[in-house]
Amino acid sequence: MQPHFTGPDPASTASVYTRSAVPDPLSPEEALHWLALRMAPGLGTRKAGQLIEIFKTPQAIFRASRSELEAASLSTSVAQSISSGCAFEDAVDQQKKAAETGALLIPITDARYPPRLREIYDPPPLLYARGRVELLATLMIAIVGTRRPTPYGTTVAERLARDLAGAGLTVVSGMARGIDTAAHRAVLPSGLKPGLDSGGGTIAVFGYGVDQVYPSENRKLAEQIATEGLVISEFPMGAPPYPQNFPIRNRIISGMSAGVLVVEGGEYSGSAITAKLAAEQNREVFAVPGNITSKMSWGPNLLIKQGAKLVQEWNDVVVELKAEDRRRLADQCRKQLKLNENEVSETSGQGQASVGSMTVHPAAQGVARSVLAVLRPDAPVPLDHLVDTMEGCSPSEIIAILFELEMSGLVRQLPGKNFIRVWADG
Amino acid sequence: MQPHFTGPDPASTASVYTRSAVPDPLSPEEALHWLALRMAPGLGTRKAGQLIEIFKTPQAIFRASRSELEAASLSTSVAQSISSGCAFEDAVDQQKKAAETGALLIPITDARYPPRLREIYDPPPLLYARGRVELLATLMIAIVGTRRPTPYGTTVAERLARDLAGAGLTVVSGMARGIDTAAHRAVLPSGLKPGLDSGGGTIAVFGYGVDQVYPSENRKLAEQIATEGLVISEFPMGAPPYPQNFPIRNRIISGMSAGVLVVEGGEYSGSAITAKLAAEQNREVFAVPGNITSKMSWGPNLLIKQGAKLVQEWNDVVVELKAEDRRRLADQCRKQLKLNENEVSETSGQGQASVGSMTVHPAAQGVARSVLAVLRPDAPVPLDHLVDTMEGCSPSEIIAILFELEMSGLVRQLPGKNFIRVWADG
Repeated sequence: MQPHFTGPDPASTASVYTRSAVPDPLSPEEALHWLALRMAPGLGTRKAGQLIEIFKTPQAIFRASRSELEAASLSTSVAQSISSGCAFEDAVDQQKKAAETGALLIPITDARYPPRLREIYDPPPLLYARGRVELLATLMIAIVGTRRPTPYGTTVAERLARDLAGAGLTVVSGMARGIDTAAHRAVLPSGLKPGLDSGGGTIAVFGYGVDQVYPSENRKLAEQIATEGLVISEFPMGAPPYPQNFPIRNRIISGMSAGVLVVEGGEYSGSAITAKLAAEQNREVFAVPGNITSKMSWGPNLLIKQGAKLVQEWNDVVVELKAEDRRRLADQCRKQLKLNENEVSETSGQGQASVGSMTVHPAAQGVARSVLAVLRPDAPVPLDHLVDTMEGCSPSEIIAILFELEMSGLVRQLPGKNFIRVWADG
Repeated sequence: MQPHFTGPDPASTASVYTRSAVPDPLSPEEALHWLALRMAPGLGTRKAGQLIEIFKTPQAIFRASRSELEAASLSTSVAQSISSGCAFEDAVDQQKKAAETGALLIPITDARYPPRLREIYDPPPLLYARGRVELLATLMIAIVGTRRPTPYGTTVAERLARDLAGAGLTVVSGMARGIDTAAHRAVLPSGLKPGLDSGGGTIAVFGYGVDQVYPSENRKLAEQIATEGLVISEFPMGAPPYPQNFPIRNRIISGMSAGVLVVEGGEYSGSAITAKLAAEQNREVFAVPGNITSKMSWGPNLLIKQGAKLVQEWNDVVVELKAEDRRRLADQCRKQLKLNENEVSETSGQGQASVGSMTVHPAAQGVARSVLAVLRPDAPVPLDHLVDTMEGCSPSEIIAILFELEMSGLVRQLPGKNFIRVWADG
């Protein structure tokens, strides 16, 4: 059988596709073939991935004969559906919708595809993305939890999200009500309180098309994330929010991330499932403990009992990261501090300076300078003394800046929360 | 040098000593020698223990020559102080005070000495005891925590103490303000609410003489424990509450117990020290998690991070006990249920039936019967269904009785909190 191609003329969609804000390495024709592969009836994620492994490109798959496809252990009906090219009609529609929404396509072969996600059992062959695609290259931490948090859960999700973003991690979640929403919102640069608060990267993984919103009250949040952060999904444009897709989506949340942090959840909660998935994917599972009298802390407490790392503060996450990941964060922090030093003079009054996923308000630079001025290279200074000395700074600000200084090699922490300066060039 | 003995005529104290309520295996002369060993100036706990190992009895120590004592690596001055017999004056005074208070002496050679305490690095050679000495033979769990608990901490300490006592464990603590007090009080039979609540054994370990009280507001509690439970101390009669003795005392609390459960405590709290001691003594360390925003949960959360077992409910303690200890609890429960079956008819309206350290209100027997009536040997019944069915019983009552039934082999728990009957003779 001859290879055949029944899709529309790729040239006709080119102008539409290139409307995307960020240049996309896929040619319109390549994009169309990826979409057709995605839309091919009866072809699942695993099988699609195997076809790509065998044939390398979707074009090659669609050029393949039915017998070649069947030799790749496709069933007769799926092989036929691919050969028929019937998926191209949907693919054209998808391409049009993607262009209209400004959505990019990130196939698994793309260098920008999240590296950790490639390693899981069933990576999505194609991701739809809206926003800062460069966030896919950052180190990510998932923060998930109940849709009905207590005020404690919301507070803690916000605080940890902000602190972890401050340490250079991108916060991944599912934009559900409750904990997910709190985590995303806390790190959006536009939602920041002035002062030390660091804006960070955030990625929302949808269980529906990136042009959809669920719950509807998160419409504004979704737009903010699609602008200041990133929205991704493996589900086609226009796919509605079917609840049965949410657990499927959860494997992406955990799969992209270095670890999953569960903030609140009942005994049989969705976040417990995400945590289980994360453990199966060999991701670190973290949980915030809570009162045993609170139903919403039952899940995290149980996870800790089962081996999840207990998180009292952001650093409990960072210390469990792999050495290479911690080095990466340290490098980011070091660059960050140096950049800010320049930015403070050049852009004073202008607001924020950003490096990659990390955005630190110049005011933080002032705090860092003050901390370094109090610290000495010859005698450890207790944290309490620092807090007492630095009037006008909250303890959490000081702790955050100490971490950054430690990460950047300027400060070393000694037992008992004592700190010394390592370099003299504060 | 000839062995010599300068103490008073032992016969003169015999009548005083035998006033004790419970017969004491020590003869008055033996008791006097133990007290003299305790009071010998300059002789520490470890050294006294080594002397007992070498000479077997205090009499033999006091009969030994100075060169024999020095050969046992005593310093010249301590050997001299023992040989001089100068401690006997204090010993007589101690014996008199012990008799007046009804305190018993339990030397390390006594069969009633707590078995686990003998294993630690520096067991006290002599314990003073007031109350139900038989509690020393039971399986013990220490419950400790801050002197300034939150309402959450107090509630949780009470609940866990009651539940653990219900499972047959004796609750050990230090009768300090706060968590200690809550734990003791919760299991005193006289303080019980009617219904299923099980009275249990409780032991207060004092860091001062068993005839002293600290804090003074615990005077009534101390008397109750000395009557319905047990008060013990290694410190002499009349020894005042010096704070520096409390950490020394803590090694007894953990040393006697199968494990130590920390309920609330700050970052550098006494309970953290007790937990550290417990770990060094190879005891299980348990901790109740709490909100990371609560200062008083900082200690327990940190302990969990360091490897302590997280406790959501009493069963989290029981499952970590050694197999032999769990069997012991199961045997107790089984006896308990059988006894109650008889007692219900024989003593109806009479109040409480007790076996060893465990006291179960006859009403519990009724609950057990009802639970068994609902359960079936052929189909698992979910806990929720049981709770719905058993009107008038709280879920915690039902859970407690399910544990007892499980322990006694009448009921088996299946995954997902489902229960089946094992025997047909409910």
